Amino acid sequence: MKSADKKSDIINGLIVREHEPLNLEMPFSTLSGYTTPNESFYVRCHFPVPEISAADWRLKIGGEVEAPFELNHEELLGMESRTIAATLECAGNNRDFLEPKVKGVQWGLGAVGNASWTGVPLSALLERAQVKSGAVEVILEGADEGEIANPPRPAGKINFARSLPLEKAVNDVLLAHTMNGEKLTPPHGFPLRAIVPGWYAMASVKWLRRIIVTAKPFAGYYQSIDYAFWERTADGLATLKPLAAQQIKAEIAQPERGETVPAGATYRVHGAAWSGDAEITKVEVSTDSGLNWALAKLAPDSAENSWRLWDYDWRTPAESGEQTLMARATDSLGRTQPSERNADHGTYMINHVLPIGVVVR
Amino acid sequence: MKSADKKSDIINGLIVREHEPLNLEMPFSTLSGYTTPNESFYVRCHFPVPEISAADWRLKIGGEVEAPFELNHEELLGMESRTIAATLECAGNNRDFLEPKVKGVQWGLGAVGNASWTGVPLSALLERAQVKSGAVEVILEGADEGEIANPPRPAGKINFARSLPLEKAVNDVLLAHTMNGEKLTPPHGFPLRAIVPGWYAMASVKWLRRIIVTAKPFAGYYQSIDYAFWERTADGLATLKPLAAQQIKAEIAQPERGETVPAGATYRVHGAAWSGDAEITKVEVSTDSGLNWALAKLAPDSAENSWRLWDYDWRTPAESGEQTLMARATDSLGRTQPSERNADHGTYMINHVLPIGVVVR
Repeated sequence: MKSADKKSDIINGLIVREHEPLNLEMPFSTLSGYTTPNESFYVRCHFPVPEISAADWRLKIGGEVEAPFELNHEELLGMESRTIAATLECAGNNRDFLEPKVKGVQWGLGAVGNASWTGVPLSALLERAQVKSGAVEVILEGADEGEIANPPRPAGKINFARSLPLEKAVNDVLLAHTMNGEKLTPPHGFPLRAIVPGWYAMASVKWLRRIIVTAKPFAGYYQSIDYAFWERTADGLATLKPLAAQQIKAEIAQPERGETVPAGATYRVHGAAWSGDAEITKVEVSTDSGLNWALAKLAPDSAENSWRLWDYDWRTPAESGEQTLMARATDSLGRTQPSERNADHGTYMINHVLPIGVVVR
Repeated sequence: MKSADKKSDIINGLIVREHEPLNLEMPFSTLSGYTTPNESFYVRCHFPVPEISAADWRLKIGGEVEAPFELNHEELLGMESRTIAATLECAGNNRDFLEPKVKGVQWGLGAVGNASWTGVPLSALLERAQVKSGAVEVILEGADEGEIANPPRPAGKINFARSLPLEKAVNDVLLAHTMNGEKLTPPHGFPLRAIVPGWYAMASVKWLRRIIVTAKPFAGYYQSIDYAFWERTADGLATLKPLAAQQIKAEIAQPERGETVPAGATYRVHGAAWSGDAEITKVEVSTDSGLNWALAKLAPDSAENSWRLWDYDWRTPAESGEQTLMARATDSLGRTQPSERNADHGTYMINHVLPIGVVVR
């Protein structure tokens, strides 16, 4: 793994966080609409991007089912499809804001994007396979594989895989072959990726090759050692839990950290906000380090599990100086973004209100 | 943590593997009987040894029970007791034999011992507390506490804790206040430790302070990030599992690695063997690197979850040279020790047949 120099290493307008595996971030200041263009959409990989030919690709559906089967690419494209909007966010988005620094890809604000996804509901495949009673989870396995560098690790190469509760798999999951009307590209999971609306994007497994229904909860590497957090029991004990639902969050696209904004002017602060399994109902902005808060204007486009754009006209101070901006969101379930970091979340689920320091001049 | 020089650092006949936390190993060549004397019994600590006064100590029983209660030391000693023999083995015993070297305390052969334990069956406390229907596990929490050094870790200080399936907790677990007829010492868990027969000893929680019945499986640090291994599903996927049952194993006490034994003589090779939830029924010895195997003589003392001593009279070669000795066990469930290491076991459950190289002269 080679760390990229984030100041200078840009590919096609995306910030290179790592070359191998490929990890690309959208400069969040370039946010320009409800739909993130495919070429601006962040890329998160754990292993080299698999090269898959449509002709050779097969998807196997098996495990605790009465009628396991395989699907080829032509059959997949022939199935009835639907289209949904969904915001995908990497569970480590905003990690670069943590103090002290922690291990992991140092994402800023841009490991997030919103797209419309077209594909086959996972439920259609599960119905055809006839899930046995007693099944509890569905494992999604990608074709991407490699060795884990540090213990505790399984022996040899493993494939990226995540499981979902059967109910979530049946009700919500789309297997997408099309992103904003275009065929998926290899970095985005060609020929098929899961879209798990409302969950952090590690659940939206790319390069799907197997769907395995299980009678026991799965505790694979990417939902135990990695992509997990600590939850407290009623008795205060820390118990490990796979990351799942996106936490409510508003992000400021402009101004950027360290930007110089004109004094005594009107500056349009803008950004996006999202929340797992809910719609955004309110965004507030503070331009004085969190002392006072004002309502931002919400854009009309809004859907559960899809972000909502917002803006706020800031009358900047007449005098030069430093100012700290903040944004915080509230959702349709009445949840508001926390102001403090929860340390039990480790290096993930970073959704406390972030300070954006700017210079007025 | 300060690493001890294992060649020279000996306290009261025990090898100091770490001073802080205290980790002491019995030189396994000193194995001299079915019962390990208390002063020779290995000590495994994760945090500083808690100083607990009998007068202040309380054990809380709560969680998914109808009638939570507390027990003081006097009440504990007044309860009906029973005595069982059980072999405790650290799950990382034999780690020093692994190539390449792995992290963790570099135990040789002696992080194991057999004692008689006297105390109160856990079932007596659970009965009094009236476990609710729907309960699935029992968490045992010790008074030992500290911060975990490396992520993924919970925030702040945590206490050592492990859970057991309710059935195991009810059927097998003893809460011991007495070890080989003597009051437990602080390093061994005064005033009360669990004895979980047949399981690696991380389950036999020391310095007990809380017993918590739960309706959900617990995934505490010491059964997820630590003290866990990878099991393969039917589909070949690696899934993380808490360490539990001791794996079958025979160890050679004498000769030691590197020992010089007389040529053309009779040398009594001896050791011990054990297996979780079973009795040892056979031990075989090879004196030629595993080519040929001969039956060892088993000692009469034998019980499920307690080790069995064995010996074998080896007619050493007339000529000088190097020889490699091996021992392997078979148990009452028909299981035999594997000859190859299972890499999915990580830094734990090291029970493949170990080579003991000696010099004949």
